[in-house]
Amino acid sequence: MTDSLRKRPLREQYAGLRNGTLTASSLAEASLEAYQARGQHDNAYLTWNGEAALAFAQATDAVIRQGGDAGALMGIPVSIKDIYAVPGLPTYAGSSQRLPPQWEQPGPMVAALLAQLPSVMGKTHTVEFAFGGLGTNTHWGTPRNPWDSQAHRTPGGSSAGAGVSLVGGTASLALGTDTAGSVRIPASMTGVAGLKTTAGRWPTNQIVPLSTTLDTPGLLAHRVDDLAFAFDALDCTLTRCTARVPAPPALADLTFGVPGAFFWDDCSPGIAETVEAAIRQLEAAGARVVTLDLPHTDEAYTLFQQGGLAAAELAAFLKTEVPEMIEALDPNVAARVRAADDMPGWEYVRRRAVIDKLYASAATRLSNVDAMITPTVAITPPTLESLLPEGAYIKANMHALRNTVIANFMGLCALTIPVGKDNAGMPVGLQVLASPWQDARLLAIGQAIEKELGTGIALLGEPPPL
Amino acid sequence: MTDSLRKRPLREQYAGLRNGTLTASSLAEASLEAYQARGQHDNAYLTWNGEAALAFAQATDAVIRQGGDAGALMGIPVSIKDIYAVPGLPTYAGSSQRLPPQWEQPGPMVAALLAQLPSVMGKTHTVEFAFGGLGTNTHWGTPRNPWDSQAHRTPGGSSAGAGVSLVGGTASLALGTDTAGSVRIPASMTGVAGLKTTAGRWPTNQIVPLSTTLDTPGLLAHRVDDLAFAFDALDCTLTRCTARVPAPPALADLTFGVPGAFFWDDCSPGIAETVEAAIRQLEAAGARVVTLDLPHTDEAYTLFQQGGLAAAELAAFLKTEVPEMIEALDPNVAARVRAADDMPGWEYVRRRAVIDKLYASAATRLSNVDAMITPTVAITPPTLESLLPEGAYIKANMHALRNTVIANFMGLCALTIPVGKDNAGMPVGLQVLASPWQDARLLAIGQAIEKELGTGIALLGEPPPL
Repeated sequence: MTDSLRKRPLREQYAGLRNGTLTASSLAEASLEAYQARGQHDNAYLTWNGEAALAFAQATDAVIRQGGDAGALMGIPVSIKDIYAVPGLPTYAGSSQRLPPQWEQPGPMVAALLAQLPSVMGKTHTVEFAFGGLGTNTHWGTPRNPWDSQAHRTPGGSSAGAGVSLVGGTASLALGTDTAGSVRIPASMTGVAGLKTTAGRWPTNQIVPLSTTLDTPGLLAHRVDDLAFAFDALDCTLTRCTARVPAPPALADLTFGVPGAFFWDDCSPGIAETVEAAIRQLEAAGARVVTLDLPHTDEAYTLFQQGGLAAAELAAFLKTEVPEMIEALDPNVAARVRAADDMPGWEYVRRRAVIDKLYASAATRLSNVDAMITPTVAITPPTLESLLPEGAYIKANMHALRNTVIANFMGLCALTIPVGKDNAGMPVGLQVLASPWQDARLLAIGQAIEKELGTGIALLGEPPPL
Repeated sequence: MTDSLRKRPLREQYAGLRNGTLTASSLAEASLEAYQARGQHDNAYLTWNGEAALAFAQATDAVIRQGGDAGALMGIPVSIKDIYAVPGLPTYAGSSQRLPPQWEQPGPMVAALLAQLPSVMGKTHTVEFAFGGLGTNTHWGTPRNPWDSQAHRTPGGSSAGAGVSLVGGTASLALGTDTAGSVRIPASMTGVAGLKTTAGRWPTNQIVPLSTTLDTPGLLAHRVDDLAFAFDALDCTLTRCTARVPAPPALADLTFGVPGAFFWDDCSPGIAETVEAAIRQLEAAGARVVTLDLPHTDEAYTLFQQGGLAAAELAAFLKTEVPEMIEALDPNVAARVRAADDMPGWEYVRRRAVIDKLYASAATRLSNVDAMITPTVAITPPTLESLLPEGAYIKANMHALRNTVIANFMGLCALTIPVGKDNAGMPVGLQVLASPWQDARLLAIGQAIEKELGTGIALLGEPPPL
């Protein structure tokens, strides 16, 4: 029963809830069983809400029996990153202290979700204030990457518990956020699909801010098809129905740009090979593949290496809203917040102007292809032990974020799709990048890719037993 | 002949050019004569373009004789602040060095103007990089305030030559920019009308930036009616004809909010009295006047006293685009640019967030009145001599900007209307503030006020002879 949620696509849950073959309670019960079986061990959740969610699901079933339909996500077990304000559940944003009560008032994103009566199974761990790509958290413990039952490997972050909640079978949809890769890295490292939306498409109100400029809400699920389903369920409320995911195009009608360098540099053994094999398979199935180096990639990455915008923007939030929390920060987060004191305001303005310029030219950058394809993350999920030596965390964190941050700094939308395992037996993700506001079409392209390659569940099989 | 341009409203020039009683050449010649008579003495222009403008006006007359009509500003003598890129004329932005050639490529604002074939009489002085409210410039000399023939008083700034070019009779319309009061202060101090547009309404491309967040293009002219005429001529091109200035409302249909404090504090003798008398006259003519203290005025002013955004934003521009110019800055400008090194990026982010919040609540702030009325500038234009003692410039500059900057930090649009003289015999302006994007209606309200009180030219008479 542990993986019964994994095996059920969202569209199947949707249909089953409406034709009487499934109930919200049975789905919530499957989540509770999975939690008992391995959820606690994998440590996906900071706040587990299982019993309350089950009671809620029973009420939802009563609504359904009376002919009610609150929306496509009704009765679906979901997890929410502990950075979104959710009524009735505390928000820590991965810190050691509960944030003030206003951080339990939902914003538009959570409101759009909750209005559909999903079963909220709990709030998943995040890197403190979402400031890190590996998924580590010294206050609450780092969730285990379920694909290695021996070594404690990172789950990817900052949405550290989001992918783990899916693989562990406690949720079928996970809300994350992505500022430099925080949806795509945990999705890639845990072998699920992830969507980073175009910045500005979905509002970030009442999501504890890391970067007011670059934060984006995003989704994780087992399949691209699940993402497409959930996207349609939420996007219409959030953007006044400007778009719906179209039918998946034929691969023969698609042209993919594949970079010649940068994204392929210094990949851990088996990562580049696995992504390349996937690309060859897409090409064999009719897709056109051309070499395309994304203009200004180096400029974007240099800006990221210099520190980007997040440290100054996070420091402004902490100093203004919760100054008492600064003393208690995780050392890896504290160091970067302290460093923000040394960057003058004009340097922030300069960086902002570079990003504005990269954004402004983003749409033209992909004008000759339907999407770009790259490896999502260049490195295999490191063990916690390997991060202990001085400087090791910083280096691995930067390396993990390298391929994802480009989309954030250029204003693109992006998807990661699981395509196999690396030489360490850990999941490998294929990243698909599309022009700003093409989120719906990107998902349709992703569905076409998934149809050809198979779902992550089919490719990866079961995670090893505990 | 010196004041022949002063005496001709823009609508009269428009009609005369089309019914054959005026020519573009005769208007340009009047400007040249005025320049000979007192223009050089008052020092409004950094770059005087008189002869070329006259030749251009002759060509315009040939167009008119052939039945051509390039737009409402055709044949009108205009001056342009030396911060706008204008083809064929150097841009110094008030600095000691000519900016690179790209700063002579026009942006949308100048393009919208030039397409109508006005006679560009020259580029007027500005405070260096527009960073100051009094109008001083140590590189090129400070324009004289024409209303004091004895002492050299400041003309107001940063659009320091804009008002002087109008009073001196060399232009009927002057382009300025307003980041904290840089249109309204020189307009008020030289006895003309000035419009600060809503931030974001008119584009600032190819205007040398002081503050990318707060810069706004604006207009100065002898009459509010001239401003309304020129606004309609430009706004339609710049905003796709979203609005036109409506017919002036009856005063009896208007409610004005007048603040109880802040704007009235520490006014030089005769300023508050003159503005109060104007308000009483409007009330006697039927307008409803209520006491209304603009919420968050203190928060906005505190932010300004802390330094606002301009120093960091200007420093970013200088360091990125023209680093070689930093060494040669005017000492009053250099001190503030240097100080930007000490403000960390997070403090800039904090300030930006305060301004975003003030902007977001701006529209509700004036919901119970048609407009707010205040004195435009609290102090009489100081003599250059009075600014020499240590600290005197900073104090006077802050005092001059106090009443105008509130509109910039709150995202309002604003107008200044000349209403009389203070005890030093210097012009006094009445400031009218309206909600964001209400620029067209603000001008109509200003026309109603001007109809009742009389134009600045009627109220102030002639400036004293040299």
